[in-house]
Amino acid sequence: MNREAFYHGTRSNWAYAYDNRTIHLRVRTQRDDVEEIAVIASDKYDWDTFYQEIPMAKTASDSMYDYWEAEVVPSYKRLSYCFRLSAGSERLWMTETGIHSEQPHPPGGYYAFPYIHDIDLFSPPAWAKDAIFYQIFPERFANGDPGNDPEGVQPWGGKPERENFFGGDLQGVLDHLDYLVDLGINAIYFTPVFKSPSNHKYDTLDYTQVDPHFGDNALLKKVVATCRERGIRVMLDAVFNHSALEFPAFQDVKAKGEESAFADWFHINEYPVAVKNGIPTYDTFGFFEGMPKFNTANPEVKKYLLDVAKYWIEEIGIDGWRLDVADEIDHRFWREFRQVVKAANPEAYIVGEVWNDSLMWLLGDQFDSVMNYPFSDKVLEFFSGPGMDGHSFASSMGFLLMRYPKQANEVVFNLLCSHDTPRVLTRVGGDKRRLKLCVVFLMTYMGTPCIFYGDEVGLQGEGDPDCRQCMEWHPDMQDRELLDFYKLLIHLRKENRALREGSFRFLKADYGDPCIIYERIDAHTHFTIWMNNTEERVTLQHPMVAEDWRDALSQEEVKPADGVMHIELEELGYRILYRTLKK
Amino acid sequence: MNREAFYHGTRSNWAYAYDNRTIHLRVRTQRDDVEEIAVIASDKYDWDTFYQEIPMAKTASDSMYDYWEAEVVPSYKRLSYCFRLSAGSERLWMTETGIHSEQPHPPGGYYAFPYIHDIDLFSPPAWAKDAIFYQIFPERFANGDPGNDPEGVQPWGGKPERENFFGGDLQGVLDHLDYLVDLGINAIYFTPVFKSPSNHKYDTLDYTQVDPHFGDNALLKKVVATCRERGIRVMLDAVFNHSALEFPAFQDVKAKGEESAFADWFHINEYPVAVKNGIPTYDTFGFFEGMPKFNTANPEVKKYLLDVAKYWIEEIGIDGWRLDVADEIDHRFWREFRQVVKAANPEAYIVGEVWNDSLMWLLGDQFDSVMNYPFSDKVLEFFSGPGMDGHSFASSMGFLLMRYPKQANEVVFNLLCSHDTPRVLTRVGGDKRRLKLCVVFLMTYMGTPCIFYGDEVGLQGEGDPDCRQCMEWHPDMQDRELLDFYKLLIHLRKENRALREGSFRFLKADYGDPCIIYERIDAHTHFTIWMNNTEERVTLQHPMVAEDWRDALSQEEVKPADGVMHIELEELGYRILYRTLKK
Repeated sequence: MNREAFYHGTRSNWAYAYDNRTIHLRVRTQRDDVEEIAVIASDKYDWDTFYQEIPMAKTASDSMYDYWEAEVVPSYKRLSYCFRLSAGSERLWMTETGIHSEQPHPPGGYYAFPYIHDIDLFSPPAWAKDAIFYQIFPERFANGDPGNDPEGVQPWGGKPERENFFGGDLQGVLDHLDYLVDLGINAIYFTPVFKSPSNHKYDTLDYTQVDPHFGDNALLKKVVATCRERGIRVMLDAVFNHSALEFPAFQDVKAKGEESAFADWFHINEYPVAVKNGIPTYDTFGFFEGMPKFNTANPEVKKYLLDVAKYWIEEIGIDGWRLDVADEIDHRFWREFRQVVKAANPEAYIVGEVWNDSLMWLLGDQFDSVMNYPFSDKVLEFFSGPGMDGHSFASSMGFLLMRYPKQANEVVFNLLCSHDTPRVLTRVGGDKRRLKLCVVFLMTYMGTPCIFYGDEVGLQGEGDPDCRQCMEWHPDMQDRELLDFYKLLIHLRKENRALREGSFRFLKADYGDPCIIYERIDAHTHFTIWMNNTEERVTLQHPMVAEDWRDALSQEEVKPADGVMHIELEELGYRILYRTLKK
Repeated sequence: MNREAFYHGTRSNWAYAYDNRTIHLRVRTQRDDVEEIAVIASDKYDWDTFYQEIPMAKTASDSMYDYWEAEVVPSYKRLSYCFRLSAGSERLWMTETGIHSEQPHPPGGYYAFPYIHDIDLFSPPAWAKDAIFYQIFPERFANGDPGNDPEGVQPWGGKPERENFFGGDLQGVLDHLDYLVDLGINAIYFTPVFKSPSNHKYDTLDYTQVDPHFGDNALLKKVVATCRERGIRVMLDAVFNHSALEFPAFQDVKAKGEESAFADWFHINEYPVAVKNGIPTYDTFGFFEGMPKFNTANPEVKKYLLDVAKYWIEEIGIDGWRLDVADEIDHRFWREFRQVVKAANPEAYIVGEVWNDSLMWLLGDQFDSVMNYPFSDKVLEFFSGPGMDGHSFASSMGFLLMRYPKQANEVVFNLLCSHDTPRVLTRVGGDKRRLKLCVVFLMTYMGTPCIFYGDEVGLQGEGDPDCRQCMEWHPDMQDRELLDFYKLLIHLRKENRALREGSFRFLKADYGDPCIIYERIDAHTHFTIWMNNTEERVTLQHPMVAEDWRDALSQEEVKPADGVMHIELEELGYRILYRTLKK
């Protein structure tokens, strides 16, 4: 056994409470190296009475490692444990002090999970597991009220540029709620709606007012209430890292310098506030002079922003906050943010924008979820053309799953594209069949899926600003076949808990072969998903004893022959099979 | 290179801000495998302008791994980075997405340290680096006031038992301050002093009153004030995990059951409150019926305990809190505790009792330090007799150092024994020479040392209750030679910043050889410590160019011959050499 590859941490994604009685433990070993692992566990204050041995299951692998998991229920909330690893006749014991060839006397030097505390539990809202989000960039979704259009508004459908406007607004959203209900989504993520000079509104002028070009606070309240009646939850975008240049407090600092009462609201490195050699004399988002960074450690700033967070929950009734540039704001701020938000709405869903490994925000005290860009990167790489095989794709997914505790994986915000990336259809070279494979994967995988407005009718576009084009509403210009496909997949996910919470496993993910088979399974339903990620017709096969499989989209019966299922797939085709285990 | 052994985490002990401009990065590789590592870093918003390459230094090793460290100062508080690892002609790049044989295009997929926030910095109080603690168990240190002795008090110096009393009190401490000043310590850690039925007082009856057998609140205030005048800081023991059985709130629950206003102050699993088959129907410390566990998530309990934490700082002026059974209390409580305590005294020192890996409490939001029992385990194992060689000892120390960020290592509470373990002299078989090696190591190593009362005069004893014997005050019964040795070593540490904050490195730590040489070095002084951990006379040698070495205890000159220092050491002997680099 490659001992140097063994890994276990005593907290975070390696050892965590999943609920108020269950501890999840994970161990990492070199891929295809260790044959068996058992958790040896008890209560450190009475080892003999509460002794238990729990076999670990190999639940994921990446390119270098296997990952093993076990659920342990301690007798009295406290757990002392070690691992016994076996390969052939070799046995090793791993404790906090190292690797041993004989079992050390317990519990000294063993790992400890000292006590399961309800208050430290990481408990995302249950509804987020069932949510299918639709991301709306309000300036480009629908213009329902030409009366509030900005000056110089351009005709709907024109070319999006960094600074142009097309007049989309909240009335436009209200007008198209039937469309969204028909599509089947049950949650909306709005990019920012507060008063701001830009079309994207990621530079806020007034956090307490809906932008007048979008409507007003009362209209937003109506949108949220109407959405609720239609079964749709609403999440807003909190841009708390920085303000707009025109934000009054920053203008005051610009005018009065150090004398300003707001001097400590920002990170000013040198007065006067200016741009020198292309770099602002104050901290900003990126190096953008127009986005001065808030000093979120200042209690006045903190109070201001936390009041904003609370206000829109209490007054307007929103169900969650997406947090812009979340990783560049201090952890202390986010801890207080969580407490304020959950006090206002215990079921609020908090999603951070973090493009990197986000573990430190996903331990229960800060976010419920993050925008899962590493997921989209790998899904798009795999389905956009040759180059990645099933083995490598499965490795990537395994790697990502093992980064976070299970409750985060269940509600991580999975997306294929957003206002910050090229459109998914563009990323897959305009090939609708490849797009469909991406969507099938998104809708049958763990995590909370999000559709970027217009993807479902075939919108294409390169990165910002090209991806932020106007929604296509003309029926003749919409890809209705694609829209029907989205509806079908959304419906399938909503109807089947197994696709949301069932366990996940690759059944086929081989070297040199881009075709994959995987399963989702819970007590009620067993799904197998078959994907031909090549430009040729293929027949995939897998041993299957049960005979009562059906196609989940056509309801057609599908039977194995002699214990092996053969599935013929068209070029870039897929099939979703299921069988009912329990009604 | 053994790729599976590579490790880097994007937070905690692997990547952390040491101060408001410096990020420390660490990488782990298999021992003796990788030859060179460089950090490749920049600002993700302008990679080319702020590009830098920083070589990493191999600063520690354990039995399986080498650990590499680098300090990086980002231009604008944000860091995007990867590592380039080399061995022979092989080069590999490690990023957040994996190991690559070519450098991936930056910064996508690179590691990120998003922003250095002052408010998230882990900043233990500076004085803790300079502190030398003395742990007092008040019931056994000195009886200064026979008038407050408990009923049935036994003659001073009798055999300690679980429930007997000898009359030690706070007046006894006051009476012996000269002794402590003469010894040279500059901080006292008192085990609990609040009202409690037991001799150890780890079951508290009233958190607002000094135990009447110890004195009263006014006397404690006088002790703290007098200590301050004499240059001694005071840390008290916060027993917040559980109360005494006799604690009024618990008695109320016992009497009234679910109807009690205090029912939610504890974790009651079943009413009535009782012991069934040897196990209490409520959560306790261990399974002790007499120590009912507080529900620290209950806002009333939290307020009560946090008010206690604040009261003794504000009213009595204490300098720190040691936290009993700290790992079994929730993290949310400790985060608020830190904020309350640091608001009351920004220089307060917070030391948790955690026997296991304590990283999750040492990230800046909870404790400053923990009781370093893993350190004492290894020091005692090494110096108590044959069995462990220098290589293994150095590996253990390297393993422990790399578990925590540097600022924690600088103030971690290093001890050789306590009221919960056998006495150090007993642990080393009563051999004073071995004890001295332990003390030399303690006093010349990184971390805040603590001496358990009486160790300095030769007290021996097995574990609780034997180790809690009465302090020996009769000069004829004290080991005066040992006491002088302690004074010398304490003085040496206090006079030399290099021994407290200088960098540490083993110069000799070999397989099969229990003799070691190590160094501490800062800009002013270079120390080398030579230890013969065998029962035979040995001569140790090490290449040394400089000629101006002196013995730190005798001031005798010690010169190398032909660039090699030869040091002859008696059985279990040691020598501490130094040279001055800068006045």
